[in-house]
Amino acid sequence: VQIGFNRRYDRSHRAVREAVREGEIGALELLVITSRDPGLAPLSYLKVSGGIFRDMTIHDFDLARFILGDNPVEEVYATGSVMVDPALKELGDIDTAMVIMKAASGTLVHINNSRRAVYGYDQRVEAFGAKGMVQSDNLRASTVTRFGAEATDVKEPLLNFFIERYMQSYLDELNDFIDVVAEKKKPSVDFEDGRIALILADAAWASFQSGKAVRVRYD
Amino acid sequence: VQIGFNRRYDRSHRAVREAVREGEIGALELLVITSRDPGLAPLSYLKVSGGIFRDMTIHDFDLARFILGDNPVEEVYATGSVMVDPALKELGDIDTAMVIMKAASGTLVHINNSRRAVYGYDQRVEAFGAKGMVQSDNLRASTVTRFGAEATDVKEPLLNFFIERYMQSYLDELNDFIDVVAEKKKPSVDFEDGRIALILADAAWASFQSGKAVRVRYD
Amino acid sequence: VQIGFNRRYDRSHRAVREAVREGEIGALELLVITSRDPGLAPLSYLKVSGGIFRDMTIHDFDLARFILGDNPVEEVYATGSVMVDPALKELGDIDTAMVIMKAASGTLVHINNSRRAVYGYDQRVEAFGAKGMVQSDNLRASTVTRFGAEATDVKEPLLNFFIERYMQSYLDELNDFIDVVAEKKKPSVDFEDGRIALILADAAWASFQSGKAVRVRYD
Amino acid sequence: VQIGFNRRYDRSHRAVREAVREGEIGALELLVITSRDPGLAPLSYLKVSGGIFRDMTIHDFDLARFILGDNPVEEVYATGSVMVDPALKELGDIDTAMVIMKAASGTLVHINNSRRAVYGYDQRVEAFGAKGMVQSDNLRASTVTRFGAEATDVKEPLLNFFIERYMQSYLDELNDFIDVVAEKKKPSVDFEDGRIALILADAAWASFQSGKAVRVRYD
Repeated sequence: VQIGFNRRYDRSHRAVREAVREGEIGALELLVITSRDPGLAPLSYLKVSGGIFRDMTIHDFDLARFILGDNPVEEVYATGSVMVDPALKELGDIDTAMVIMKAASGTLVHINNSRRAVYGYDQRVEAFGAKGMVQSDNLRASTVTRFGAEATDVKEPLLNFFIERYMQSYLDELNDFIDVVAEKKKPSVDFEDGRIALILADAAWASFQSGKAVRVRYD
Repeated sequence: VQIGFNRRYDRSHRAVREAVREGEIGALELLVITSRDPGLAPLSYLKVSGGIFRDMTIHDFDLARFILGDNPVEEVYATGSVMVDPALKELGDIDTAMVIMKAASGTLVHINNSRRAVYGYDQRVEAFGAKGMVQSDNLRASTVTRFGAEATDVKEPLLNFFIERYMQSYLDELNDFIDVVAEKKKPSVDFEDGRIALILADAAWASFQSGKAVRVRYD
Repeated sequence: VQIGFNRRYDRSHRAVREAVREGEIGALELLVITSRDPGLAPLSYLKVSGGIFRDMTIHDFDLARFILGDNPVEEVYATGSVMVDPALKELGDIDTAMVIMKAASGTLVHINNSRRAVYGYDQRVEAFGAKGMVQSDNLRASTVTRFGAEATDVKEPLLNFFIERYMQSYLDELNDFIDVVAEKKKPSVDFEDGRIALILADAAWASFQSGKAVRVRYD
Repeated sequence: VQIGFNRRYDRSHRAVREAVREGEIGALELLVITSRDPGLAPLSYLKVSGGIFRDMTIHDFDLARFILGDNPVEEVYATGSVMVDPALKELGDIDTAMVIMKAASGTLVHINNSRRAVYGYDQRVEAFGAKGMVQSDNLRASTVTRFGAEATDVKEPLLNFFIERYMQSYLDELNDFIDVVAEKKKPSVDFEDGRIALILADAAWASFQSGKAVRVRYD
């Protein structure tokens, strides 16, 4: 089974993981993931999506795990609001969320989500540690910059959504998948990764409901 | 009484507040404050500082309130770790912390702190809303940028600490104070601001101890 | 005939041209093109390349014309040095060059070239006019940024050379070519463009030899 | 005699010089100075200013010399146009100019000037050499950055003019001057520097008039 966590294949996010893994920033102390969709999915989808933590934050939970490596998340706190569309309230869902997680080594992880960022698909990662910081930033379709009487350094909006932003990731993931099939290699993302991300999503939901940090149980 | 929340006078943070106040980014949905000291204060100070939330995060609580305007914080969740110096553990304190707060309108606020950022004093604010985002970034002593075989766009470390970073703020605050004294104006930061920031700091501590989001009581 | 001036298809350079054409920056007053190769071509190639203006600057001459639109270059001044490899001197060629051109409307154009930039293939365009400025910047393989005790904002080297940097341009040019063949359209770069770029290259060489600005004759 | 070349005291320009002097970028091969005023000076001033090379570019000539160190300029080519205000034509002056100079070691220097940049006072330096590049960029009053549906990374206009931009330089120059007076030290900018910058300005004017590169005579 090969699960669709394509962000693991994004060159910039991947470089953050490598920097952490190779000790470039020393012990990982803070991990901040910004993850905002450009606009609300159709309500027909949202009705069956399982809620923001299962349909949106789940990718950030997986990305956090990818960077944390063998430093498992032990505790999850999550909260949220309906700020974008009141219809979400009727569905029992939210559209704006924040999460804090604590990993075994003491590393603190923050995720923030919005279902609507007017400036494009906002996907950033910041890993902070004893020896420095490494960040992964957004992509734009060009490098054009404008200067005028009112504003300087003006760039175009971010790439619109995951198809555009994670194009390179999808291609690399596909290549990886072909290698897995052809060479019977172990896939780099597997069923267990999907299961754990879902456990974190459900812990976030339980925390949101209870107002308490939730201890994560993986068994 | 004029309280020393000089960050309110920082030109860039102030511009974030103005953008929010004038509706430039629409309803404020997410507020993210990054606040990391360049290095650990002496243990002799830390012993009597009252803990990270009272001696360090308190400035971020005030800055959050400054930007939130008349949208009061209702709930605080905080957690933390000892990652920088084990001596903090003996003092019953922490050196690495994350906070999430929820304001009356539903706005979510995140603060992350470290007592040691090797690249300098890291003070950033990001306000995200229905119509866009506005950020306040760090300062450096010059604009020099280097390009070499191994790295490009290389800039110097951030200004080292609050004296350097908030120099302009201190001067503006001092001018404001002189105006207050001379013209018997109402100070723009007063005793009540200090009291509320302290309430938030204590709520954060209570949350950290209990693992629960704490409802804030202002009376 | 379809000539290989692929830079015309680069999204960012193209956006500069569009901004100029649509009057976004008003009358074009200054155009600055930075164009530096990552490293020296093999001497065997350099021996037959026709010299720096014909083998390297020629692409910048065409790019300048692309942005100038119907504002023809009237005068060329060029100079240069051998700074990278003394072997160029024996070939009667140079490896470091600067050009100034004046167009009919008075627009001034500067090009600077080096055959060796250790930080990667440096390709920038800056168009300055009555109402503002628009720039096209370099590309990198990722958006990773590093912060450490000695340096901040550190990015990786630029994409290494034209294959990587102008990949998107080549694909778009290829698509354009297919359209030309299939639909018998007029190609967007044609033989005449190649002829004129060569005239400018030869004017540059004549200027370099004489130390005088050379009036360009197109017939 | 202490001459008013305050740009030598700008922290960022100074860091470029230090990088060059300490061999950080190897042999200096290309030096590019961008220098554009925010708006036209009053005609009453322009009438007696001595022309663009003597009243505006002269600061750039001095800055170039400051960075070149003991590598004297041997040849100057200059050209220009009247693009900003036709009144300049009646005064026999220009408002838009480009210069190329060649120094003894072969280093090529480019300066471009405009008397009107709507986005503020534009003062940049780029030194390129065998081992890399170092740049000095512009200053803004704050670090605020805006993201919206139409544009991202939007910053405010540059600091308006030399009083704002070179404030720090003026203060440092003043301190230096006080040291010179008090301690009878040799001033770091002296009469000879003023004389040479004027020689370069006059060579530029002669080149502009003749259309030829002019060999500089310092005696």
